[in-house]
Amino acid sequence: MPEAASAPSPTLGFARAGGPASRAVIGDSEFDRDTAVTRREPGVYDIDLSAGWTIFDAVNGGFLLAVLGRALADALPHPDPFTVSAYYLTASRPGPAVVRTQTVRTGRTLSTGQASLFQYDDEGNEVERIRVLASYGDLSDLSEDVRTTATPPAIPPLEQCFGADDAPEPLPGGSAIAERLMLKLDPATLGWAVGAPSGRGEMRAWFGLADGRDADPLSLLLAVDALPPTAFEIGIEGWVPTVELTVHVRRRPAPGPLRVSITTRNLAGGFLEEDAEVWDSEDRLVAQSRQLARVSRG
Amino acid sequence: MPEAASAPSPTLGFARAGGPASRAVIGDSEFDRDTAVTRREPGVYDIDLSAGWTIFDAVNGGFLLAVLGRALADALPHPDPFTVSAYYLTASRPGPAVVRTQTVRTGRTLSTGQASLFQYDDEGNEVERIRVLASYGDLSDLSEDVRTTATPPAIPPLEQCFGADDAPEPLPGGSAIAERLMLKLDPATLGWAVGAPSGRGEMRAWFGLADGRDADPLSLLLAVDALPPTAFEIGIEGWVPTVELTVHVRRRPAPGPLRVSITTRNLAGGFLEEDAEVWDSEDRLVAQSRQLARVSRG
Repeated sequence: MPEAASAPSPTLGFARAGGPASRAVIGDSEFDRDTAVTRREPGVYDIDLSAGWTIFDAVNGGFLLAVLGRALADALPHPDPFTVSAYYLTASRPGPAVVRTQTVRTGRTLSTGQASLFQYDDEGNEVERIRVLASYGDLSDLSEDVRTTATPPAIPPLEQCFGADDAPEPLPGGSAIAERLMLKLDPATLGWAVGAPSGRGEMRAWFGLADGRDADPLSLLLAVDALPPTAFEIGIEGWVPTVELTVHVRRRPAPGPLRVSITTRNLAGGFLEEDAEVWDSEDRLVAQSRQLARVSRG
Repeated sequence: MPEAASAPSPTLGFARAGGPASRAVIGDSEFDRDTAVTRREPGVYDIDLSAGWTIFDAVNGGFLLAVLGRALADALPHPDPFTVSAYYLTASRPGPAVVRTQTVRTGRTLSTGQASLFQYDDEGNEVERIRVLASYGDLSDLSEDVRTTATPPAIPPLEQCFGADDAPEPLPGGSAIAERLMLKLDPATLGWAVGAPSGRGEMRAWFGLADGRDADPLSLLLAVDALPPTAFEIGIEGWVPTVELTVHVRRRPAPGPLRVSITTRNLAGGFLEEDAEVWDSEDRLVAQSRQLARVSRG
């Protein structure tokens, strides 16, 4: 898809050649079309998972969170994900899938729901790919009271960071999804890409959608799992499958590119945690996530 | 309960007057007896929630995690919780409860399950209190490979820290559970107890069970939610109910007291995250948790 593939103009941040007028908008973009679910019956939704959001042959875990998030936003009385906890069971492939949701509890401020995404085996039996518990609310109702000690990640300006197009060779993990993301990595966390990992469990990047669509709570679910794994900078090669990932959406993101920082402090016994922070253009911490991932043997 | 109420001897760490010989052991302690569940039928367990683990009139959330953890350990083929994500729906009270579990997926290394704890309304209808998703494994199978940059919390020696018995006045939140915990808080995070909160979202403590029972993976589920909320040190009074809490158990804890550090970096819009780290006597990070909590209005 030439549009999505064309890199954003660094000087314009998100905007592609042609300027803001040509940018996709929330509600009318590839991300919105590809995460859209069709209600089969109350609480049950069909979707044909696009091949456009895969890493190698598996659909990206953050993209799947957004799909489940769309279904729950329809099924629950509140519009925005506040916290989503996902357990990844089997790898999702492009193709038909069904999302089955359950309303667990509805309250005044928060509603809690559950959702599972299934695909089909050769006999047409449903195979569960991912199961989530989530609480939804309305981000517009949050007070402006902020007492935070968190600070945005130290990352060079976007034009000094590097994306797949800038790499000396195709980045490991580079796949169809890479064409759809504006992902510019901090050179300080890019050693792994040239065979010289820093040894530090850190990865930082500017993040957006390649077509210029601004961020919203659903795309934050994609943002927290879109960077290369910190394990690469620790010097571990190969797949690092997610066991569990919980994301907290703390604020509706302002327009403009996001900064995403992921950190691993404890790699032990073949497992590691990966903490993500997502910051918006107003220097507000809009999402936090933590995942437990497994270092695949070999 | 005079035994549990008697403060631990600082010089002996965990041991009460009478010495190690009088210490409770894993499998034969009040914590083990009170978290024990009775299998009604495959996957369904009954328990009478003790009033001994309450804060004010609600059963402690970490204790409930341990109860659900016991049920899942019986229902799943793997023995140890690796990751548990809990959504708190309604407050649990002392009295009868039923835990209903479901095996979601069983794998070679990990099994994933779901569990809900219900109590009963006046008409005897089940009311769901808490729902969890969890992945279990065998901590004994983990490799000894450790590449961590995490460091134990800076906390004074146990004998220089303060528990409920040492407080000038009963600590807010002090309740039945306080008699069953060996909880000695770092004086640097105790300002709130004397009306002078530090303004920093930090709380540190030595943690154990008052009867000297050593820690195990189940008691780690209690440890991550046993300290006073960081909100107290930020200067926020009143209840800070947990919306969601995910804990990762990373290693089987060594004998001896634990050090627990909880941190809040982002209080915004009436919600805050609380990150906990639990360290054992061998300076190993044995558990990590994060919860999203709500600042109750008024």
